Amino acid sequence: MKPKAILLPAGEMPRQWYNIQADIKINPPLGPDGKPIGPEMLSPVFPMNIIEQEVSTQRWIDIPEPVLDIYSIWRPSPLIRATALEKALDTPARIYYKNEGCSPPGSHKPNTAVAQAYYNKQFGIERITTETGAGQWGSALSFACAQFGLECKVYMVRVSFEQKPYRKTMMEVWGGKCIPSPSTETKAGRDALARDPNTPGSLGIAISEAVEAAVSDTTGKTRYSLGSVLNHVMLHQTIIGLEVKKQLAMAGEYPDILIACAGGGSNFAGLAFPFVLDKINGKKIEIYPVEPQACPSMTRGLFTYDYGDTARYTPLLAMHSLGHMFVPPPIHAGGLRYHGMAPAVSQLVEEGLVTPKTVNQLSCYEAGSLFAKTEGFIPAPETTHALAQTIAEARLAKEEGKEKVIVVNFSGHGLLDLAAYERYMAGGLKDVFLSDEKIAELKDAIKGHPVPERLKSIRK
Amino acid sequence: MKPKAILLPAGEMPRQWYNIQADIKINPPLGPDGKPIGPEMLSPVFPMNIIEQEVSTQRWIDIPEPVLDIYSIWRPSPLIRATALEKALDTPARIYYKNEGCSPPGSHKPNTAVAQAYYNKQFGIERITTETGAGQWGSALSFACAQFGLECKVYMVRVSFEQKPYRKTMMEVWGGKCIPSPSTETKAGRDALARDPNTPGSLGIAISEAVEAAVSDTTGKTRYSLGSVLNHVMLHQTIIGLEVKKQLAMAGEYPDILIACAGGGSNFAGLAFPFVLDKINGKKIEIYPVEPQACPSMTRGLFTYDYGDTARYTPLLAMHSLGHMFVPPPIHAGGLRYHGMAPAVSQLVEEGLVTPKTVNQLSCYEAGSLFAKTEGFIPAPETTHALAQTIAEARLAKEEGKEKVIVVNFSGHGLLDLAAYERYMAGGLKDVFLSDEKIAELKDAIKGHPVPERLKSIRK
Repeated sequence: MKPKAILLPAGEMPRQWYNIQADIKINPPLGPDGKPIGPEMLSPVFPMNIIEQEVSTQRWIDIPEPVLDIYSIWRPSPLIRATALEKALDTPARIYYKNEGCSPPGSHKPNTAVAQAYYNKQFGIERITTETGAGQWGSALSFACAQFGLECKVYMVRVSFEQKPYRKTMMEVWGGKCIPSPSTETKAGRDALARDPNTPGSLGIAISEAVEAAVSDTTGKTRYSLGSVLNHVMLHQTIIGLEVKKQLAMAGEYPDILIACAGGGSNFAGLAFPFVLDKINGKKIEIYPVEPQACPSMTRGLFTYDYGDTARYTPLLAMHSLGHMFVPPPIHAGGLRYHGMAPAVSQLVEEGLVTPKTVNQLSCYEAGSLFAKTEGFIPAPETTHALAQTIAEARLAKEEGKEKVIVVNFSGHGLLDLAAYERYMAGGLKDVFLSDEKIAELKDAIKGHPVPERLKSIRK
Repeated sequence: MKPKAILLPAGEMPRQWYNIQADIKINPPLGPDGKPIGPEMLSPVFPMNIIEQEVSTQRWIDIPEPVLDIYSIWRPSPLIRATALEKALDTPARIYYKNEGCSPPGSHKPNTAVAQAYYNKQFGIERITTETGAGQWGSALSFACAQFGLECKVYMVRVSFEQKPYRKTMMEVWGGKCIPSPSTETKAGRDALARDPNTPGSLGIAISEAVEAAVSDTTGKTRYSLGSVLNHVMLHQTIIGLEVKKQLAMAGEYPDILIACAGGGSNFAGLAFPFVLDKINGKKIEIYPVEPQACPSMTRGLFTYDYGDTARYTPLLAMHSLGHMFVPPPIHAGGLRYHGMAPAVSQLVEEGLVTPKTVNQLSCYEAGSLFAKTEGFIPAPETTHALAQTIAEARLAKEEGKEKVIVVNFSGHGLLDLAAYERYMAGGLKDVFLSDEKIAELKDAIKGHPVPERLKSIRK
């Protein structure tokens, strides 16, 4: 018996995060005046220790001891050889999945939630606001805030709030408060409701609400926390890929293909960035962020400066975007319903270091169901996107007769998303595709924005 | 940083189960005529390879390679030091929990489900029927059957079926079929509905339905599978305690107190039996199975011969029982709503080798909430019973100023039980206690049953 799981010894958990800003250049965020913003402009939104991390170019950043301590509840997470899936596909590919579903909230999100809660606590903050799509992020931050005795308020995209009622309960068990967005509690929410009283909501709107709630607290003890997109979030997630590197070394393997789903980009970055460094250094490896056809920012969006939220409270970020006013169709993968993409990931796309792929909803659930029947774990709707691409690559490897090594990030389990599987099994789901006209219209709306510089990273 | 989790290297996973029948005597099951039954009488219900295991007195039994292979998806499971819970309780006790919630269905149940599916497949069986209380067992068996390409039909206790709608979906994702019990599909179900059309159902009724469905299939390709109570189920679960022994040795610890919840007895047996062997050999250790006050078979039931199910399809088993006709109050911990207790566990209670405890519903959710806020994982309602006792012991240790080592089995997560937490947080749950009159009435109904022999185990 060769164990399916490659378990890193507890003492081998990485003690530093990898900061990709040491190795690639990223266009700076701009203020409303079109000029690069200084750290002080972000200080009402984030604590200064996190802002420093956001702009740091130091390659390795120490993970604080209290964060390592909490990580060790579920980390190092297992890397598992998907032998049963391989068998079902009759593929010569060797497929490994990194199981980030074993954290208390069931996804990769606490990797950054715990870090952010820690830094906020250190800075004297008492209350954090945030948004959540599918609920994974809001759950993770509620969990993390409970660890440090912080209050947590979560604006949850309405369509997901309704699709996944127990996410709210989950947050409440950890002491968090969760309300559907758009709400009437903020100006941003009220404006969104005025535009469309029946809006399913979007991450863009929910971010506006959470930012507004944070900066309008006059005590100065509230800050906002973002679960993806920003550099410090990508940084905290790199523990995933750093563990995978060590685990693959234990098995004597190196990936030909890396795959992860990408909404804002954080679980993708977490797995991929440590390998991007290898690629910059000349290693041959294919790296695929996978997005839904219902929200194709990297493959069909514009690489431009755009706002991170609907109400334009955030700085302009250099990223692939479908426009900050875009409300993506209500697919079940709420975590992938974001109009933009992390600037760091967008930069890698622009440079050809990573190659975005798209998949559609039905093939995702087909993949998720096959994965559950073979490997056991029921994947989150977001995760099924990565699995659909993985299965496509494994089938291709079979056609080509090639022994490829594929590593996929199992970013979370779907035990709170069973309603989506129920709809799928009952034939109630369909594919969602944006027409060329719709895409052109979306791009038109942001055509006048500042254009990012075509930066080229240093290659050694 | 000292990692919270003690991770056993993958290669160190035990390759044999521990069979307590080598070390204690258990009264044999009796047929309707009051005489011990032979293996052949069980053969319409179970495959012969499992029947052989049920009566084996061999101390160590090899775990088949294909079972080890599937175990290795989530095993060895982590043993975690509950430092945050200890801190919240300000206790000198060192608390460790064994996290069985990281399996695909989220509980300890697949430890035996995978083994049983394997043995059925080996024996040429194509279809398995079973019952489930809270849904953990039905999910686990559906998962296991998917691994071996077997059909799975689950009769789910109605009250749980209604409280936990997504359990059905979960089983269906793995290809299982799930219907509420009592159903009109079986005579046992129809009889139960005739007695009380509004019955919440019980494990006793659901077992009758599943056994009837198995034995009435004339193709001979269907068998029944039980998720607890029987010797072979306890056997398969011992991998939990065997791992814990190795993990504690890594930490240089030995438990003063072992705690697990007990419905039919399997997660308790899994943790405890390898340590009971130590106790028989003279080691000092307290071992507590914890049951709900709403269903107190060990603490207030009769040690007698009784049926395992309502329709009396099973043999008479020597166990603590509240009577096979007892329908326990509809508490959320569906897995603990069983009238009887595993004969092996009952025998240990009779001999004073383990000491049963009871807890009530509200203190359980209080414990579960505190555990979630400190250690992160949200426990299943069943698991909260073990945690309530653990917290009581940790508080006692503080009063006594003693540095005790407490090991508790975290038998499963509660992510599909959030409706119960919602009710608890809204103040909608109350304690449930059976009156002395009710207990006397229950005992009266089974007073005429054969009385087990007072057996005494060999002590070295």
